[in-house]
Amino acid sequence: MNVMDRREFGWLLAAPALASLAPQALGAQATLRVNGNRLNKSVADLAQFGKTPEGGTNRPAYSGEDLQAREFVMELMREAKLDVSIDAAANLIGRRAGTDSELKPLMIGSHIDSVPSGGSYDGQVGSMGAVEVARTLGENNVRLRHSLEVIIFQNEEGGTTGSTAITVGLSQQRLGVVTGSGKNIRDGIKFLGGDPEKLATAIRKKGDVAAYVELHIEQGGRLHREKVNIGVVEGIVGLDWWDVTIEGFANHAGTTPMDQRRDALLAAARYVEAVNRVAWSIPGRHVATVGKIQAFPGATNVIPGRVTTSLDLRDLDAAKIKLVFDGITAEVRKIEAATGTRFEFKPTTSSQPALTDTTIRAAIDASAKGMGLSTMLLPSGAGHDGQEIAHICPIGMIFVPSRDGISHSPREFSEPVDITNGANVLLHTLLKLDTRRTAV
Amino acid sequence: MNVMDRREFGWLLAAPALASLAPQALGAQATLRVNGNRLNKSVADLAQFGKTPEGGTNRPAYSGEDLQAREFVMELMREAKLDVSIDAAANLIGRRAGTDSELKPLMIGSHIDSVPSGGSYDGQVGSMGAVEVARTLGENNVRLRHSLEVIIFQNEEGGTTGSTAITVGLSQQRLGVVTGSGKNIRDGIKFLGGDPEKLATAIRKKGDVAAYVELHIEQGGRLHREKVNIGVVEGIVGLDWWDVTIEGFANHAGTTPMDQRRDALLAAARYVEAVNRVAWSIPGRHVATVGKIQAFPGATNVIPGRVTTSLDLRDLDAAKIKLVFDGITAEVRKIEAATGTRFEFKPTTSSQPALTDTTIRAAIDASAKGMGLSTMLLPSGAGHDGQEIAHICPIGMIFVPSRDGISHSPREFSEPVDITNGANVLLHTLLKLDTRRTAV
Repeated sequence: MNVMDRREFGWLLAAPALASLAPQALGAQATLRVNGNRLNKSVADLAQFGKTPEGGTNRPAYSGEDLQAREFVMELMREAKLDVSIDAAANLIGRRAGTDSELKPLMIGSHIDSVPSGGSYDGQVGSMGAVEVARTLGENNVRLRHSLEVIIFQNEEGGTTGSTAITVGLSQQRLGVVTGSGKNIRDGIKFLGGDPEKLATAIRKKGDVAAYVELHIEQGGRLHREKVNIGVVEGIVGLDWWDVTIEGFANHAGTTPMDQRRDALLAAARYVEAVNRVAWSIPGRHVATVGKIQAFPGATNVIPGRVTTSLDLRDLDAAKIKLVFDGITAEVRKIEAATGTRFEFKPTTSSQPALTDTTIRAAIDASAKGMGLSTMLLPSGAGHDGQEIAHICPIGMIFVPSRDGISHSPREFSEPVDITNGANVLLHTLLKLDTRRTAV
Repeated sequence: MNVMDRREFGWLLAAPALASLAPQALGAQATLRVNGNRLNKSVADLAQFGKTPEGGTNRPAYSGEDLQAREFVMELMREAKLDVSIDAAANLIGRRAGTDSELKPLMIGSHIDSVPSGGSYDGQVGSMGAVEVARTLGENNVRLRHSLEVIIFQNEEGGTTGSTAITVGLSQQRLGVVTGSGKNIRDGIKFLGGDPEKLATAIRKKGDVAAYVELHIEQGGRLHREKVNIGVVEGIVGLDWWDVTIEGFANHAGTTPMDQRRDALLAAARYVEAVNRVAWSIPGRHVATVGKIQAFPGATNVIPGRVTTSLDLRDLDAAKIKLVFDGITAEVRKIEAATGTRFEFKPTTSSQPALTDTTIRAAIDASAKGMGLSTMLLPSGAGHDGQEIAHICPIGMIFVPSRDGISHSPREFSEPVDITNGANVLLHTLLKLDTRRTAV
């Protein structure tokens, strides 16, 4: 909700908001539950599209598997009695009208594309959960006052592409980026049934959506380790990425004395160590990672003359990211002087932290506790479509445990009971939010 | 001369040997000089085979360019009135009989294969220098008492292959190694006119050769920096190489808190730093290098779970190499404990240090000084065929300056005057050694 003008949303102003979410209005709906078996079967069925020998999912955005999986999801949406459409940005949308046509839609959803050789839960649990919530409401003849949109964002793993497309928009440069599928984003959008020439028609302006809530696996180990059922997400961390190049001087490993070297890999080693040391030296929950490195020419018997590496900094507070980065660059100046090398930091990706809405957090927390589930407030270290949607409406996120915190791996796993719990919390959060009337 | 039994070489026992190298025997030969213009033209002509746009030479062993360059050298050998042959190991040999058939041959030479995109001087200066010395002797009707062999070893850059083949021999495994040319060594030997089925016929036993002397560019910066004309090589350093694997645990860079990580790249960084620190902490001229590194999976947003890297240690004293390695592994044990990672060191290449013969060193030094050239005693940090030939006879090496110490690069360069000086020193070293009679 980082760029939100809170005054536009009347129901958000009644603080402490949750107390005013009239429980009596829910009535018989308090015992409403999703069909857990059907939900977990959907997750398993979806995992057939791009299934890998290791038991994971390989379904990059814009691949044939992605297209097939979307057909499967559209069929599920139709079974849930949703009106299915594909917007110009190739997001998949299932709609159902509300009883009050003056209210803006409540939006729930996630994504079904995967990282290469990834798992079968990231995005997929939230997508199937959202469809199941819509189906449960329909089967039980619960009509919401707000219209409902179940949205499956395209190419989340390639940088929250679909959600960016309908909020801040995709630049021509971004549309030309070649993705893991081999197609660029422009061609990928066409491939999935969107229209890259009409992206403007897909844009949602601030106030066009009442709220967005996403169910997702944690992708970290806190809920699993601390045996907590539901994570109430405090916000999605902002992140900054850099490509880092270190220039030294390549020379013969045998004939160049130790005092005559300008070893780019020695400088890189001190840099990696400094990134870790600076991150630890500053209190907080920020994370700092160097994930890739290559030395050139890259032979056992040649002192590296050049190293390319990276930097990934994340926190819920953009000022903290800057503080950590400044600490690292101060160390880098010393490393340059000591090793006779030059560092260059080229920013590649940047996203602002996106805090979740406190009223939605409270609705999630109350929904979970109402079903006897334990909760924990925690940040999302991973990026999500919600960070883009936060530009246009208040957002909330529900996390369920990931076994051992493993994600982006075939070993990614969440227990069926946790998936069902998460969908039930999404269902009741939606019901609570529906009792509030937005000013829009 | 590391495995040499000095008793077999009577002329080596007369210490201080040089004083007994009867100067009067050289007579009119004291003013004998190579044809510097012709020599430098040969070096330039040879550089046409595999010439690169950057002005260097790309002539991997067993390539078409290697074969063509060898034809060129055979033609030069014939012009120098040498009897040309190719041994079963595909070394190129130009022979001339001596006046005393009881004496074993004096051997001079080098190699003409290059590293990929290398320079035009490494090996090539010594090869052309040896041919020019033989031609100068012939033109001036100087017949040596020892027979003379000019040898061009095949595939030096791929691990002193030709010299190993005629001394300790090549294993079947080694013959199967695929080289930069795309051919394995067995097929490469055939391609160059050798016979891999008859390698035993090429073996030289201890005592089969009187001495081996090689002219080479320094490939380091000491002679150039200190403005010294001739390097008298003290020995060829021994080297040990390891492939190093570090196992941690890959995880999401955003969702894994700093205190929950087993970051293989952080461990690798501390290892690279420790290699440098341990090397500096021990007095001496040893060198320690980490030249390659790769992180897996190798993405900006994933904590590396595995890193592959290397280690290259060199010194004239094998015990010093062990001391440095032990220091590094002691540090590695601490790094493992601190980072929750495991290191594995797999030895890949090992060569013993090969000291040059003190009498040959003295002959080189006296030859240089006799022409008014300055000299310096220095180790060879690079490997050379001499280290293999040291298994069967005393060896000596003559270095000439490399501009800025740059080698294995198109920027490799030695001044024509330095090349001529080096060949003249080789010529006179040969004449001096020829006055001694070996006991073999």
